[in-house]
Amino acid sequence: MAVKTKTIAELSEMVGGELAGDPDIRIHGMADLVSAGPGQISFLVKTAGFESLKHSKASAFIVQQALAYDDKPLIKVKNPYLAAARIQTFFLEEPFIATGISPKAHIGDDCNIPAEVAIGPFACIGNRVSLGKEVAIHPGVVIGDDVVIGDNCLIYPNVTVYHSCTIGARVIIHSGTVIGSDGFGFATDETGRHYKRPHVVTVQVDDDVEIGAGVTIDRATFGKTHIMKGTKIDNLVQIGHNVTIGENSLVVAQVGIAGSASLGKNVVIGGQVGIKGHIHLDDGSMVAAKSGVHSNMEKGATVAGYPAIPHKDWLKASTIFAKLPKLYAELLEMRKKIEAMHKKLFPEEERDG
Amino acid sequence: MAVKTKTIAELSEMVGGELAGDPDIRIHGMADLVSAGPGQISFLVKTAGFESLKHSKASAFIVQQALAYDDKPLIKVKNPYLAAARIQTFFLEEPFIATGISPKAHIGDDCNIPAEVAIGPFACIGNRVSLGKEVAIHPGVVIGDDVVIGDNCLIYPNVTVYHSCTIGARVIIHSGTVIGSDGFGFATDETGRHYKRPHVVTVQVDDDVEIGAGVTIDRATFGKTHIMKGTKIDNLVQIGHNVTIGENSLVVAQVGIAGSASLGKNVVIGGQVGIKGHIHLDDGSMVAAKSGVHSNMEKGATVAGYPAIPHKDWLKASTIFAKLPKLYAELLEMRKKIEAMHKKLFPEEERDG
Amino acid sequence: MAVKTKTIAELSEMVGGELAGDPDIRIHGMADLVSAGPGQISFLVKTAGFESLKHSKASAFIVQQALAYDDKPLIKVKNPYLAAARIQTFFLEEPFIATGISPKAHIGDDCNIPAEVAIGPFACIGNRVSLGKEVAIHPGVVIGDDVVIGDNCLIYPNVTVYHSCTIGARVIIHSGTVIGSDGFGFATDETGRHYKRPHVVTVQVDDDVEIGAGVTIDRATFGKTHIMKGTKIDNLVQIGHNVTIGENSLVVAQVGIAGSASLGKNVVIGGQVGIKGHIHLDDGSMVAAKSGVHSNMEKGATVAGYPAIPHKDWLKASTIFAKLPKLYAELLEMRKKIEAMHKKLFPEEERDG
Repeated sequence: MAVKTKTIAELSEMVGGELAGDPDIRIHGMADLVSAGPGQISFLVKTAGFESLKHSKASAFIVQQALAYDDKPLIKVKNPYLAAARIQTFFLEEPFIATGISPKAHIGDDCNIPAEVAIGPFACIGNRVSLGKEVAIHPGVVIGDDVVIGDNCLIYPNVTVYHSCTIGARVIIHSGTVIGSDGFGFATDETGRHYKRPHVVTVQVDDDVEIGAGVTIDRATFGKTHIMKGTKIDNLVQIGHNVTIGENSLVVAQVGIAGSASLGKNVVIGGQVGIKGHIHLDDGSMVAAKSGVHSNMEKGATVAGYPAIPHKDWLKASTIFAKLPKLYAELLEMRKKIEAMHKKLFPEEERDG
Repeated sequence: MAVKTKTIAELSEMVGGELAGDPDIRIHGMADLVSAGPGQISFLVKTAGFESLKHSKASAFIVQQALAYDDKPLIKVKNPYLAAARIQTFFLEEPFIATGISPKAHIGDDCNIPAEVAIGPFACIGNRVSLGKEVAIHPGVVIGDDVVIGDNCLIYPNVTVYHSCTIGARVIIHSGTVIGSDGFGFATDETGRHYKRPHVVTVQVDDDVEIGAGVTIDRATFGKTHIMKGTKIDNLVQIGHNVTIGENSLVVAQVGIAGSASLGKNVVIGGQVGIKGHIHLDDGSMVAAKSGVHSNMEKGATVAGYPAIPHKDWLKASTIFAKLPKLYAELLEMRKKIEAMHKKLFPEEERDG
Repeated sequence: MAVKTKTIAELSEMVGGELAGDPDIRIHGMADLVSAGPGQISFLVKTAGFESLKHSKASAFIVQQALAYDDKPLIKVKNPYLAAARIQTFFLEEPFIATGISPKAHIGDDCNIPAEVAIGPFACIGNRVSLGKEVAIHPGVVIGDDVVIGDNCLIYPNVTVYHSCTIGARVIIHSGTVIGSDGFGFATDETGRHYKRPHVVTVQVDDDVEIGAGVTIDRATFGKTHIMKGTKIDNLVQIGHNVTIGENSLVVAQVGIAGSASLGKNVVIGGQVGIKGHIHLDDGSMVAAKSGVHSNMEKGATVAGYPAIPHKDWLKASTIFAKLPKLYAELLEMRKKIEAMHKKLFPEEERDG
C-alpha cells in the first residue's frame, strides 16, 4: 500500500483545528510522543505531559487550544484526543480488498452475497443469508440461517451469529463473540425440574456498533434484544434476552445486563458492573466499575457500589467503611462513659433496669 | 413445516389445566399479550398485568387458577409460566432432521456415529468418539478424542469439548463454550516459578443439562468435574476443576466457582457470584447476585454480600452502609456531648486522663 | 505408548528428596490417596490427612520432611505439592507427534513452518506466519498474518490470534481465547458519538506462559500489551490494551485488568478482581478475590475489598459491616441516654438549642 501523506494544513482542516507553524510540513503517520519521529504527528491530550512534547521528535503536534508554545508546529483543537483518533484513522484506513468467497468457505442455499466481499476459509454461512457490500467475514465465523448483515461490516474469526439475527452497517464484531444464543429462561415445576422457555426471536444490532471479543448477546423470548446505533461494547460482556441498549452507549468489559433491562442513550457502564433485569437506566446515566444496580436510574445520574447508591455518597461511605474497626472501638469507649455517667445521674433507673 | 394446531381443550389437558370457555377454539401458536393475534394463545403469569390481557387480541389465555374473568377463553393452572413454556415448546418443537455428516466435516478414526445425526461443515470429531442418536453438531465445533455424547444433544457452533469428556442425553451447549480445559493448578518453587499440575481426567455432564455461551468448565486433576442432571448454566460462567454441581441447579451468568467446590441439588447462584474453592453449598441454598461465598452453606440458606452473610442481614447492613457518613457525623456530635458531660460529672478523671 | 516406570530411588533423586524405604520399588504412575493402587505413588501435601495415607493402597508416598512414619515407603521433600506435580508430569509427558499439516488446514503465503508440527483440520494460518518446532495447532484455530509462535507451543481448538502478535516458546493457550483484538478506546465528540481509536500494535506473550480458556487480551494503541515469562492466566480473564504483566504472576479466573495497568513479578490476583487502568501493582503484591483496585500497590502489599484496602483492615471492617444493624440500634439507644443526661446536666443549652 502506498504511504499517504498530508500537509499539517490539510490535517488541521480535517479536524477543524487552528494551525500554528509552517502549513506545508508533510506528515505520513502518527505515533505517541516518545516513539514518534520526523514525518510523524503526535498529540498531547492534556496540558500535563508537556515536557514529553518538548522532547518529542515528531514533526507536529495536536494540542489543546489553550496551549501556548511557539517552538513547534501545532494543530490546536478543543479535543486533541478526538482529533488524534480521526487523523490516525485517516492514515491507517485501507481500501477494502474484495477477495471474494474462499473456496474453503461454506455458503448455504439462497444467499444474497454481492461480489465485493471477503469471506475467509472455514467460514460457514447458512441458508438465505444476506450480506451487504464490502463485508469481511473472517475464518471460522459461523453465520446462521436467515441472518442479514449490512454494508462494510467486519466480523473477526470464530464469531457465531445464530439464525435470524440482524446486523446493521459498519458493525465490527471481535473474535469469539456469540450473538443470538438462547436466553436463560426456565419455568420450574414443583419437583424443581426446569423447563426451557423457547427463545423465538432475535437480536438486532444497529449501525456503527462495535462488539468486543468473547461477548454473549442472547436472543429474546418475544420481541427482540436490541443494540442501537453507535454503541460500543467491550470484551466478555453478557447481555441477557430482551435487553435494549440505546444509542452511543459504552459498556466496559465483563459487565452483565440481566434480561429485559433497558439502557437509554449515552449511558456509560463501568467494568464488571451487574444490572438487574427489568430496570431502566435513563439517558446519560453512569455506573462506576464493579457496581450492582438494582433499581431504575434517572437521566444523568451517577451511581456506585452494591447495591448502587449515588456516587458521591458511595465515596464517602466507602471511606468510612475502612474506618469501621476504629469507629467500633470508639463506640465501645463511648458506651462505657455513658454507662458510668448514667449511673451517676439516674441511679434509680440503673437499679430497676 | 406444517403448522400444528390444537383445540384449547387439548392444550388444557396437556398442562393439567381447568378450562373456561369454548373448548373447540383452535390454536396454532403462542405470543405475548401485546403482539398475539387471533389463533394464538397468550399468558399472564401474575394477576398484575390484567389490563393487558383485556386488550390482547389472543384467542385464549393461560392464567392463574384464582383469576375470575368470564369474557375470554381461559386455561387456568397453578403455574401459568410453566404451562406457557410447555405449550409454546409444543408448538415450536420440530422433528430432528438427520442431514448426516457434512462432506466438509472431519471425522476421526474408530468413531461410533449413528446415521441419525446432523454434523455441520468444519465440525471436527476426534478419534474413538461416540455419538448418540439425533445429535446435532453445528459448524466449527471441535470434539476431542474419546468423547462420549448421548442421544438428542444439540451442540451449537464453535463449541470445544476436550478429549475424554462425557456428555449425557438431551444436553444443549451454546456457542463458544469450552468443556474440559485444564484447571488452574500450579505448584510453585522457591524462586517463584510455577510448575503445571497435570489435569488427568475429565468432565462429566449429565442428562438434560443446558450450558450457555462462552462458558468454561475445567477438567479435574484426579476424579472428575461433574454437572448433574437437569442443571442449567448461563453464559460466561467459569467452573473450576473438580467442582460438582447437583441436580436441577441454576447458575446465572458470569458466576465463578473455584476448584473442588460442591453444590447440592436445586441450588440457585445469582449472576457474577464468586464461590471459594473446597466449600459446600447444600441443597436448595441460594446466593444473591454479585456475592462472594467464603464458607459452607446449610440446606436452604440464602446469603448475599461479600463476604456473604444471611440475605436479610445483608439488606439491613447495606441500608446502613449508605447512611455511614450521616452516622459518622452523628457519632462525632455525640462524642462532643459525652466529653462535655463527662468533664462536668467526673472532673477529677478528666484532669488525670 | 509404553508405560514408563521408575524406582522410588530414581523418583526421589528427580525431586531432590530423602528416601525412606526400599529404594527398588517400581512405580508406573501417580494417583490421589484414595484411588491409588499398587505400582502407583501418591502424595500428602500437609500433615493433615495422614489417616488417608495410612489407608491408601499406593506403593509409595511423597510427604513433608517433618513426617515421622516408618510403615510405608516415603519420599520426603520440602514441598510435596511441587514434587508431586513434577513426578506426575514425568509419568504423563508424551513425546510430540509431528503429524504435520492436515490437508484440511489452510496455510497462507510465505509462511515459515518446520516439518515437526501438528496442525489440525480447519486450522487457518495467515500469511507470513512463523512457527517454531513441535508446535501443535488444534482444529479451528485462526492465526492472523505476520504472527510469530515459538517452539513447543500448544494451541487448543478455536483460539484466535490476531495479526502481528508474538508468542514465545512453550506457551499453552486454551480454547476460545482471543489474543490481539482491538482495545476499548474511543474518542467522543460533543454530540456523544464515539470515534474508534486505532489499535496499531501488538500483543507479546513470552516463554512459558499459560493462558486459560475464553481469555481476551487486547492489542495496544501504541507500544504493546505484554505478558512476561512464566505468568499463568486462568479462564475468562480480560486484559486491556497496553497492559504489562511481569514474570511468574498468577491471574485467577474472570479478572479484568484495564488499559495501561502494569503488574510486577510474582503478583497474585484473585478471581473476579478488577484493576483500574494506568495503575501499578508492584512485585509480589496480592489482591484478594472480587476486590477492586483503584490505586498503586507497593511491593508485597496485600489488599481486599472495593475499593481495596489492606487485607487485614478489610477483614475487620467486613466483620463489623455484618454487625451494622446491631450497632445502629445501639447508637440510637446511646443517643437517647445522652439526650436525657444532657438535658439534666445542661438544661439551659437544651432550652436554647
